[in-house]
Amino acid sequence: MVDILHRVGIDASPSDVFQALTTLDRLNAWWTNDTTGDPRIDGVIHFQFGDRGFFDMKVVGLEPGKRVLWEVIAGPGEWIGTEVSWELKPHGDATTIMFKHQGWREPVEFMHHCSTKWATFLLSLKASLETGKGAPFPDDVRISVDAD
Amino acid sequence: MVDILHRVGIDASPSDVFQALTTLDRLNAWWTNDTTGDPRIDGVIHFQFGDRGFFDMKVVGLEPGKRVLWEVIAGPGEWIGTEVSWELKPHGDATTIMFKHQGWREPVEFMHHCSTKWATFLLSLKASLETGKGAPFPDDVRISVDAD
Repeated sequence: MVDILHRVGIDASPSDVFQALTTLDRLNAWWTNDTTGDPRIDGVIHFQFGDRGFFDMKVVGLEPGKRVLWEVIAGPGEWIGTEVSWELKPHGDATTIMFKHQGWREPVEFMHHCSTKWATFLLSLKASLETGKGAPFPDDVRISVDAD
Repeated sequence: MVDILHRVGIDASPSDVFQALTTLDRLNAWWTNDTTGDPRIDGVIHFQFGDRGFFDMKVVGLEPGKRVLWEVIAGPGEWIGTEVSWELKPHGDATTIMFKHQGWREPVEFMHHCSTKWATFLLSLKASLETGKGAPFPDDVRISVDAD
């Protein structure tokens, strides 16, 4: 089992960062602009990326201002059964996010891609909170020579 | 042992990407503007980041247009003995980089930070080749609420 790890500091309170991970209108601002579903505990959030694909995340952990845990229940085969873990740590008036996308079965090429892509979306989350303007799909940062 | 993985596609030939990893003036354009040393096989490249620190990389693998492998021989304790591996794959007229920073002993918090930071420098490398303007230190992308 291998994990994608990232850390980003955001000039916003843990409570604000938690909101950005647990409300549809705030999720829309940094990952994909087509986010629907139920972001409450045991709910399923649907993240749609046009005709490129989607992820369905079951909310399996929520500690306000501290932690969010999603389990991938539908989407690309490599993602199913993996978990996306957000740990929020206060840093003065700001917040440090410790991010893990854990439980990949193999370090496949797609995992390399997703690692880089997660970094760009974490910076989109940071920008959405600090400047009011993130870069969610379909305005996300391109990291390849293909469309994505 | 845990690894940082990334993948980036660059609209430049494998030969141009290889140059950007193996010549001082091109390395200067995307990681740190203070890069010195000997980028030939068995040489040591010194990457200095002002008073924040440095990395010394021994060039332990070079296959023109295909692969570059560095071994970290000085710098932060967590990095020493790890390897930075660049695999270049042709993708039409472009290049896909499969990147690994491998051999971390533990998935410490600093590793999370470095994973995100590597993504920003890979995008700096991409921009340096595609637009002529990267974002090397000290003009690198800030990912935390501290100086780095």
